[in-house]
Amino acid sequence: MHKSQPGPVDNRQSKQSTLFTLPLTAVHLTQGFWANAQQTNRTISLGHGYNMLEQSGNFANLRLAAGLAKGAYTGYLFADSDVYKWLEAVGWELGRADDAQLQAMAAEAITLVERAQQPDGYLNSYYQFVLPEKRWTDLDHGHELYCAGHLIQAAVAFQRAVNNGRLLAVALRFVDHLYDLFGPGQREATCGHPEIETALVELYRLTQDPRHLELAQLFIDRRGQNKMRGHAGYGAIYQQDHLPVRQAQEVVGHAVRQLYLTTGVTDLYMESGETALLQAMQTLWDDMTRRKLYVTGGVGARFDGEAFGGPYELPSDTGYLETCAAIASLMWNWRLLLITGGSKYADLFEHTLYNSVLSSPGLEGTSYLYVNPLQVRNGRYVRALVDTGVDEARRRPAWHKCACCPPNVMRLFASLGHYLATANEAGIQIHQFAAASLDLTVNGRSTQLAIATNYPWMGHIEVTVNTTPTEPWTLSLRQPGWCHHAQLTLNGTAIPAEVGENGYLNLTRRWQPGDVLQLELTMDPTFLAPHPRIDALRSCVALQRGPLIYCFESHDQPAGVDLDDVQVRTDEPVAVTAVPLLGGIEAITVPGRMAQLGGAEPLYRRLDEAMEVDWQPVTLTAVPYFVWGNRGMHSMRVWLPQAKLPA
Amino acid sequence: MHKSQPGPVDNRQSKQSTLFTLPLTAVHLTQGFWANAQQTNRTISLGHGYNMLEQSGNFANLRLAAGLAKGAYTGYLFADSDVYKWLEAVGWELGRADDAQLQAMAAEAITLVERAQQPDGYLNSYYQFVLPEKRWTDLDHGHELYCAGHLIQAAVAFQRAVNNGRLLAVALRFVDHLYDLFGPGQREATCGHPEIETALVELYRLTQDPRHLELAQLFIDRRGQNKMRGHAGYGAIYQQDHLPVRQAQEVVGHAVRQLYLTTGVTDLYMESGETALLQAMQTLWDDMTRRKLYVTGGVGARFDGEAFGGPYELPSDTGYLETCAAIASLMWNWRLLLITGGSKYADLFEHTLYNSVLSSPGLEGTSYLYVNPLQVRNGRYVRALVDTGVDEARRRPAWHKCACCPPNVMRLFASLGHYLATANEAGIQIHQFAAASLDLTVNGRSTQLAIATNYPWMGHIEVTVNTTPTEPWTLSLRQPGWCHHAQLTLNGTAIPAEVGENGYLNLTRRWQPGDVLQLELTMDPTFLAPHPRIDALRSCVALQRGPLIYCFESHDQPAGVDLDDVQVRTDEPVAVTAVPLLGGIEAITVPGRMAQLGGAEPLYRRLDEAMEVDWQPVTLTAVPYFVWGNRGMHSMRVWLPQAKLPA
Repeated sequence: MHKSQPGPVDNRQSKQSTLFTLPLTAVHLTQGFWANAQQTNRTISLGHGYNMLEQSGNFANLRLAAGLAKGAYTGYLFADSDVYKWLEAVGWELGRADDAQLQAMAAEAITLVERAQQPDGYLNSYYQFVLPEKRWTDLDHGHELYCAGHLIQAAVAFQRAVNNGRLLAVALRFVDHLYDLFGPGQREATCGHPEIETALVELYRLTQDPRHLELAQLFIDRRGQNKMRGHAGYGAIYQQDHLPVRQAQEVVGHAVRQLYLTTGVTDLYMESGETALLQAMQTLWDDMTRRKLYVTGGVGARFDGEAFGGPYELPSDTGYLETCAAIASLMWNWRLLLITGGSKYADLFEHTLYNSVLSSPGLEGTSYLYVNPLQVRNGRYVRALVDTGVDEARRRPAWHKCACCPPNVMRLFASLGHYLATANEAGIQIHQFAAASLDLTVNGRSTQLAIATNYPWMGHIEVTVNTTPTEPWTLSLRQPGWCHHAQLTLNGTAIPAEVGENGYLNLTRRWQPGDVLQLELTMDPTFLAPHPRIDALRSCVALQRGPLIYCFESHDQPAGVDLDDVQVRTDEPVAVTAVPLLGGIEAITVPGRMAQLGGAEPLYRRLDEAMEVDWQPVTLTAVPYFVWGNRGMHSMRVWLPQAKLPA
Repeated sequence: MHKSQPGPVDNRQSKQSTLFTLPLTAVHLTQGFWANAQQTNRTISLGHGYNMLEQSGNFANLRLAAGLAKGAYTGYLFADSDVYKWLEAVGWELGRADDAQLQAMAAEAITLVERAQQPDGYLNSYYQFVLPEKRWTDLDHGHELYCAGHLIQAAVAFQRAVNNGRLLAVALRFVDHLYDLFGPGQREATCGHPEIETALVELYRLTQDPRHLELAQLFIDRRGQNKMRGHAGYGAIYQQDHLPVRQAQEVVGHAVRQLYLTTGVTDLYMESGETALLQAMQTLWDDMTRRKLYVTGGVGARFDGEAFGGPYELPSDTGYLETCAAIASLMWNWRLLLITGGSKYADLFEHTLYNSVLSSPGLEGTSYLYVNPLQVRNGRYVRALVDTGVDEARRRPAWHKCACCPPNVMRLFASLGHYLATANEAGIQIHQFAAASLDLTVNGRSTQLAIATNYPWMGHIEVTVNTTPTEPWTLSLRQPGWCHHAQLTLNGTAIPAEVGENGYLNLTRRWQPGDVLQLELTMDPTFLAPHPRIDALRSCVALQRGPLIYCFESHDQPAGVDLDDVQVRTDEPVAVTAVPLLGGIEAITVPGRMAQLGGAEPLYRRLDEAMEVDWQPVTLTAVPYFVWGNRGMHSMRVWLPQAKLPA
């Protein structure tokens, strides 16, 4: 394959970077958790995606645009983007290993895309087939540039991963067309759904064509004129057009739009080095993480507008927490990590991946959650679950009417290794923990590492140095924010584990082939308490072990236990048990108590008239949040009230 | 005027009634709280409404339909209903006292309505002018029957209140047309927005034409075929078409639709006596009051779909609590009270009136809240407030794009006296407490009472018997559910106050002219605690005094106090102070404490790592919820966390 080719982000030439991404094939996920997720994605989900794109009419739409078929357009006007995201996923997969079936499916889709493109470079099956006279008339809601962005990303993937330039040729023709229309001195417009910005910066990294960066900058600089129409009553704030990006103080509006935009702006900073951009991004990151982030890493408190709520507005039941918004957060955090080298971004990447992205795909790989709420009350559907297709059997749907999330998960999983490690002049940084082999070049010399771990179930990580330069270099291992005690052992001898300013355990030495570094992260279950301003979570606790947030599903509780009526005792020990359930997870049992309520009690009573509650002790079982709903969706809660026991 | 004519509900001939409504002019609100609200409505709001209906195009739409003008239709397709509700309000007002200006405005509007009516009886300015070929093609969303219902109610008001039959003639022509189209053996359809049902039953009470009751029954019986299309992804449940009314177990979907429907079904039961209908209504009432009612009496937890949430889903910030839904609840409770005589319905009427309807109009009478949330977090708009027109100055809007609420408040206030008392063979029942004179006939003999009170600020109510039959009769005074101690004094002597099964203090005697009965309701401020299943309110308390729910507005707190960071101490006494604020209200001060937070604290922390909080004692001031937002809308909370103090 193309060993030296990069993955989704190639910042080797970027002006502003502390860490640098590795070639696509430098990290090979060997076994265990990440490898399994990737394997399911490759062998099951991608074929499922192909079938769904066929069934849902996405391919058919392109055939219509190409004049290859007759019929009616199907689905939303941004349906092409699902094809591009799926293609991007297939591209990264083919880059890691060939597969005749995936090759054939991709070739067919790429041919369709090629044929659908207009002679002038324009490409959008909806506008071409349904409203040919209306091209570029509705930048606010037309999604034409959004789709172009996903086309570019798929093109970059195929070029880098398998040296296949067919999609890139399509993309470049389209971008030339865009530059003519929207370039310097041309139409002062930008897209209602950010996405093209990050895509154009990445295209620039591939082509080094300054027009590509210039166009990204124009699309970013034009935002904030308070002219976009918004949606669901939100106005321009819905599309982050209320303020120029450099002046933004808060993450607001449609969550995916907001975080695709911040990703693009961060990309632009990496290339341009304009400090105001990075400052704005850090302000927004602080706002998101201090005021608008769910404990699972998900974002988007509001069903209406799929939007960020106000500060501390973080309801468990009605929260939206779209899978795509979580993925967008990964993209943004990855770039901030590359720029700063700060572990807090890798921490949030990890946390969001395990708890807000992994919860989307069903364990079998052929179903997806669009939204990821933290509570389903007593067997009732959450509004957003219903609206995004959870079926009568209360299962994840196989696909969605608006199917942005499934292929987004696919392209992430297909490129998962990209996010595990980076390198720079000092050495190698391990950001995420998964069983993997690393084969890369540090300062021009070959380095090979093997990582063994049963993470996230166990906190033991073993790095074996197989090949190393003779000069000293630094191996940096992230000490996760969730971990309060880490122990390093080098070749069987305990060594001091000091966390550097960057949040990493940095070990600089002359490494020898055969060196074994062991990292032991203490992984005790921990109760979490919410900020007192979060009204929706007052007096509740959540349960975390390692990077995993846990939840309580009705399936696992003793008969007769209603999750609406239980409280958790935090004064007694909890127990971790490996259970065969759902492919071998670590469950946690906690002591609790349950109120015997009939449901006919008054909703409100005088405080001085205590409600007579008969409490029964119960043992409650928690499972990782990401596996919820794999056995049907009944009751589920991440947060449970903490029992206030008599002193 | 027409002393013997009834008000909005005339159940004198109804099969199933325990209590009977009084003639329109039997109750005269003399002074004080209710009289002031009614006076503002009469002298300010009705004229404002007229101007707004002109400005918003509602009258213009009728002119278009009548062929009296040219132009474009404005507003929603149900715009006529705003005219009818305003007319109903004017009708009741004219029935109580003449007013040349109101007369002139009404006459003009009635003439417009007459002229707009088609020869076949059809009347709907939207369909007539915009989609004449589409009449009755969209029963789910067309609101044609909904508008007809409001026309009927206005017609009934004018006929009863001022013996003006012009609107009634229009309504009867329309209803004849409806009977031809939708009567027995005709088209099996019903309206997507209930309203015509209760209107037709009331029309039947006026006309005694059995076709009017028959049509109401048909519209009710046809509901529940799970065919309506719904809205916002809800499906048929949005319009309560998911189940036949007799099988319904829960209040669901769009809250106003649900409660207009239950009102109509309850009306039908009063006439038909079909037990299954009443049983279904009691099941729904239990569901609403035990699981889906806000502490203010408001309903509708969800912004999307303006809908009931799931059980115990009662968020303070994102709740919708539409004013019209609260008014619909009043209508329903009033009918259940008439049927059963049970005080719990009059209790909820009172509670909803003071805390969820009175909060809508601004104190000046020319602005209205569409939604009535229980929390505005730290100066930020609540989504539903923004969408329903709260302006840049954070004030109630003068009118709404969908202006259903303002004229609904107007028609209620114009007929407020109707809901104060009833009579039956046993005597007179006083349900609500307001300064008033009562002039009515009990068992064919004249009875005159005078009620003096400063309710809801004080719990003292004095009833003077001015004229009375010589035979014994029973005077029943509701002992409010909020009151735990009541004292009765007759002519200066304390007498036992025993609450009967109906929840009333029933005093049977040979009354003498000059008898003075005093009722003293102990009105101490009380903290309320929520049901433990209400996740949104855990560990919080609310404050009630008498029938009034209080709230904390930022305006009244000491400088620097952030309502997001305060807790209430419930272990120390609270104080009530009359303040000149906002027209002389009783404010309540409570001891509390405030956390000094910077806003940069982590959103989630380990439970074993206590957050260092510096608490400062503060005195917090609460005002009645219904006055909130009259000084601009900044922070407001009904529920505040209860301080957990060291034992």
